[in-house]
Amino acid sequence: MKIGMSHGAGGEVMGNLISQTILNNLSKKAVEGGLGLDALDDGATIPLGDYEIVVTTDGHTINPLFFPGGDIGRISAAGTINDVSVMGAKPLAISNAMILQEGFSIEDLDKIIKSLSDTCEEVDVAVITGDTKVMEQDKLDGIVIVTTGIGIAKKGEVIKDSTLSVGDKIIITGSVGDHGMSLMSFREGFGFETELKSDVAPIWGIISKALEVGGVTAMKDPTRGGLANCINEMARKSGVGVMIQDEAIPVKEAVRAASDMLGIDPYEVANEGKVLMGVKAEKAEEVLAAIKTDKYGKDAAIIGEVIDDDKVLIETGIGGVRILETPIADPVPRVC
Amino acid sequence: MKIGMSHGAGGEVMGNLISQTILNNLSKKAVEGGLGLDALDDGATIPLGDYEIVVTTDGHTINPLFFPGGDIGRISAAGTINDVSVMGAKPLAISNAMILQEGFSIEDLDKIIKSLSDTCEEVDVAVITGDTKVMEQDKLDGIVIVTTGIGIAKKGEVIKDSTLSVGDKIIITGSVGDHGMSLMSFREGFGFETELKSDVAPIWGIISKALEVGGVTAMKDPTRGGLANCINEMARKSGVGVMIQDEAIPVKEAVRAASDMLGIDPYEVANEGKVLMGVKAEKAEEVLAAIKTDKYGKDAAIIGEVIDDDKVLIETGIGGVRILETPIADPVPRVC
Repeated sequence: MKIGMSHGAGGEVMGNLISQTILNNLSKKAVEGGLGLDALDDGATIPLGDYEIVVTTDGHTINPLFFPGGDIGRISAAGTINDVSVMGAKPLAISNAMILQEGFSIEDLDKIIKSLSDTCEEVDVAVITGDTKVMEQDKLDGIVIVTTGIGIAKKGEVIKDSTLSVGDKIIITGSVGDHGMSLMSFREGFGFETELKSDVAPIWGIISKALEVGGVTAMKDPTRGGLANCINEMARKSGVGVMIQDEAIPVKEAVRAASDMLGIDPYEVANEGKVLMGVKAEKAEEVLAAIKTDKYGKDAAIIGEVIDDDKVLIETGIGGVRILETPIADPVPRVC
Repeated sequence: MKIGMSHGAGGEVMGNLISQTILNNLSKKAVEGGLGLDALDDGATIPLGDYEIVVTTDGHTINPLFFPGGDIGRISAAGTINDVSVMGAKPLAISNAMILQEGFSIEDLDKIIKSLSDTCEEVDVAVITGDTKVMEQDKLDGIVIVTTGIGIAKKGEVIKDSTLSVGDKIIITGSVGDHGMSLMSFREGFGFETELKSDVAPIWGIISKALEVGGVTAMKDPTRGGLANCINEMARKSGVGVMIQDEAIPVKEAVRAASDMLGIDPYEVANEGKVLMGVKAEKAEEVLAAIKTDKYGKDAAIIGEVIDDDKVLIETGIGGVRILETPIADPVPRVC
């Protein structure tokens, strides 16, 4: 058996590789009392005194390295900061391991590291350690960056992606599909570039505002495989169903146009500055209002509700209901 | 300016890239009260209550993936576990981010992950989180693994690489040059394979035994750039000199033979299961005896002493003294 592109593209194929090849071969997958690899959450936890250390890692192989709205430096910082944040932990620091192609431009490297630093600075995160390796010109294309994020939560305050309850409202913190569709359009040279740009951003600000209000039951960021993958994973792990209102999901006009033209579902492509959260019904409006005060949360919306079912359903404008399936793989490869 | 192979090979050239391009572009490089990137130690620290969290990261681009004595899985686990350990912290967990070439054999991936897991198991370390990405067949050769290690030390008990004092004895925990020379010989197809193999191993056992005795003043593991790079870095950061006895340095016969034939200095190539430590003179024999009880420490030796100077000097068998310089770059590329 050989690795295919879809093994790295979120969705079902990647899930199978992870459970069969990775989880099966590892003997110790958690620190005692902590959340480990088997949970397949956005990060893991290590209990320490009155705290839980949250750890998460992400490899970034995005193509191209510079794109409308960001670059590999910004996505390497934001991706990891966001995975710590959706665990309910304050992100403190990241590590930065870079693999460079021999011949890579040092001017580009300067820009990438500056961008990574600026992104960290937005949420007061430090880059505390790193590593640099070089591979021969014909062995690697460009640059790969792996960041690992460290955050801290008070004991018992970590928020999982598997704890939705029937009756919870579902909030998305802004428009969906921006990252994947802008990347695809830019790569293919379609004419949407002026309107379409990635949403890549560190969203600890949004999350800390929501946590201050209270009532958040579960969180996850809809990256590879998009909203469709994310909500299905949350529902499956929580043992519940979800009813989504199609018309309530914010999608930008340009994203919808590009989706139609390219035949790609905007719900299945990656976002890099959004959170999907479950919130107790009585707190949902207050949490929504708090999120909307953040610069990255202006378009937030309540898009559905957790139901007693085993499927994610979506109600269309004309009153029909269909199943929102887990995608086989993100239709836009190399998005992060 | 463009990246060259030596930018990733330890030594002076890599040091310049790190200080000019990486450190210069990052604004926040430490968590308050912790050891940060500027220290360029084996890891960084985050203070938390009565503890310090130690964090370290390493990218592994070793060529070939399977070699005498180990494979990329074993080196990915041991390399990071050892960097946490030489900070004086008990390693608890690693994260595992893999970048795979499209078409990579899933059977090989099975073996690599099993080996990584077995290595962690030796020192009771958990693999708590991870990430998997795939790059197209013509964009990456094989597999890259980035591991990040998390360890815990009691507040104030972290050991740096910059705290040697005049009079300290220098201990190396075993023979030098095994990893680099075995890899080079294997790669080039020379006939040393039967005798030469990598020393790659997790050395928390050695270090915990030494720490129990007490008197350890500074530690570092001599990976890229070997013993020569490591001892020069420790001396320079500590503001001291070191006098080494050439004949006291353990070098296996086969390593010496391969070095002579290939014209490569065994002191300049990587080790992957060794520690160089400074120890208070009055504790040195006791620490040495403790190290020798460990399966990876049988060939440990006291090889020199810290002196009031600004150079690392080496005394040869016939009584001559020469300067042991920092290598420009490790003469064997892609060793880890």
